Amino acid sequence: MANSRSGDSLLSRLVTILDAFDSHRSSMTISALSRRVGIPLATTHRLVVQLLDERLLERDADGGVRLGIRLWELASRGSRTTDLREIALPFMEDVHAVVQQHTTLSLLDSENVLYIERLTTRGSAVNITQIAGRLPIHACSSGLVLLAYSPPEFQDDVLGRELVRYTEHTVTEPAALRRLLAGIRQLGHASVPGIIVPNTTGIAVPVFERGDRVIAALNVIVPFGEEDLRATVPALKTAAHGISRALGSDRPRGGTSRMPRAV
Amino acid sequence: MANSRSGDSLLSRLVTILDAFDSHRSSMTISALSRRVGIPLATTHRLVVQLLDERLLERDADGGVRLGIRLWELASRGSRTTDLREIALPFMEDVHAVVQQHTTLSLLDSENVLYIERLTTRGSAVNITQIAGRLPIHACSSGLVLLAYSPPEFQDDVLGRELVRYTEHTVTEPAALRRLLAGIRQLGHASVPGIIVPNTTGIAVPVFERGDRVIAALNVIVPFGEEDLRATVPALKTAAHGISRALGSDRPRGGTSRMPRAV
Repeated sequence: MANSRSGDSLLSRLVTILDAFDSHRSSMTISALSRRVGIPLATTHRLVVQLLDERLLERDADGGVRLGIRLWELASRGSRTTDLREIALPFMEDVHAVVQQHTTLSLLDSENVLYIERLTTRGSAVNITQIAGRLPIHACSSGLVLLAYSPPEFQDDVLGRELVRYTEHTVTEPAALRRLLAGIRQLGHASVPGIIVPNTTGIAVPVFERGDRVIAALNVIVPFGEEDLRATVPALKTAAHGISRALGSDRPRGGTSRMPRAV
Repeated sequence: MANSRSGDSLLSRLVTILDAFDSHRSSMTISALSRRVGIPLATTHRLVVQLLDERLLERDADGGVRLGIRLWELASRGSRTTDLREIALPFMEDVHAVVQQHTTLSLLDSENVLYIERLTTRGSAVNITQIAGRLPIHACSSGLVLLAYSPPEFQDDVLGRELVRYTEHTVTEPAALRRLLAGIRQLGHASVPGIIVPNTTGIAVPVFERGDRVIAALNVIVPFGEEDLRATVPALKTAAHGISRALGSDRPRGGTSRMPRAV
């Protein structure tokens, strides 16, 4: 495959371009994009033209480029992420209605917590999660739940690393973290105040797939001091059971008809 | 850029591979994939290896490959589709709670209706919409709404084509279609029984962006004979107004903190 002088493959450079966009930078000029990804302007321009040709990027009204709807379509249509979030959404709404706090669904990907859905509550705690955003595994309640139910080798691997201390409450010392994980497995939930953002508490439970494998974490984010664990944990566990059940049964594909192929 | 003998660019062949996956074929062996996309096995294998390297594809437990979570992340993080559906979701839930029928949100892309969110209702009408699935513009209520509020040149273009007649109720004759579109603009909603699936009625309203541009269609799908337009249309229009208002104001990004960059 055509490699650049730096040895990166064409695909890896195309991915670097796509990866430069996020909710804070959803549109950029080609020169801003070139600076951001550290690829020379002429090369960036050539890569952008290819991505525009395939509609993975689109031009916007301000002369910049942004991610194309076509990219979202390609990524979503056959994705298990789309399936999981569609199955989980009604149960998340139940939690959201009862607990009335930010509610998120996340999974483990490349040793980070990747958020695949969130329902927000205005005027509640600061919520730094974003759909398709990531948080470090040791610094959020969902991550700790996902870690607590991971295979021992994976836990050893994470605990063997230098972990970032985001606040005074972030647990980074291996022995203390092991005790925290053991406690989470014993209780079946994590409740951790201020380990990444002060004054907010994350409460999370595991979502099991058929068998005992944990596939996701269901979480609420509440202002510090407003945790009502006796109410919140049963609500979360009930919804997590519902998601597991729905995952195990026939997927709610919503009808027997096949959709006509793209027209 | 390295082109294949057929003249397709490498990126276009990679997109062809990704495009082969959908909810009915979310996992395939490389040979099944090769047959499906019509690319020789050795070439398919080489393309798949590249996609696996970048985690745009993943191996699954059964020896096949499937879309990678990384692809979903790239496509979702900076996408206006993600923003729009997150803003619209609470309003869709309101409609869903009141009308208790399948509720969808869609937009126009490449002259098709692309569904970006749906909330399903068990035991209701057949629902052939899928998240990231497409339907033809002239054969669903959402498409007719999006067409009715499109620029005249675009309408002329669509009406000038050979349109597929899916059922006896699909309107394909240009003059009749023009009358249908005029009626939709006059009433502010579309209500069309059985134009793509018998025994179901689609009811849709436009969602306006700042100014007068229609950005999306909000729709419910009900069993034929159970349309209660006097109740449904006001519910849809109220929710569509809510979405427009939310789009015009500051995006509900859910907090002031920046998320730490990928760790």
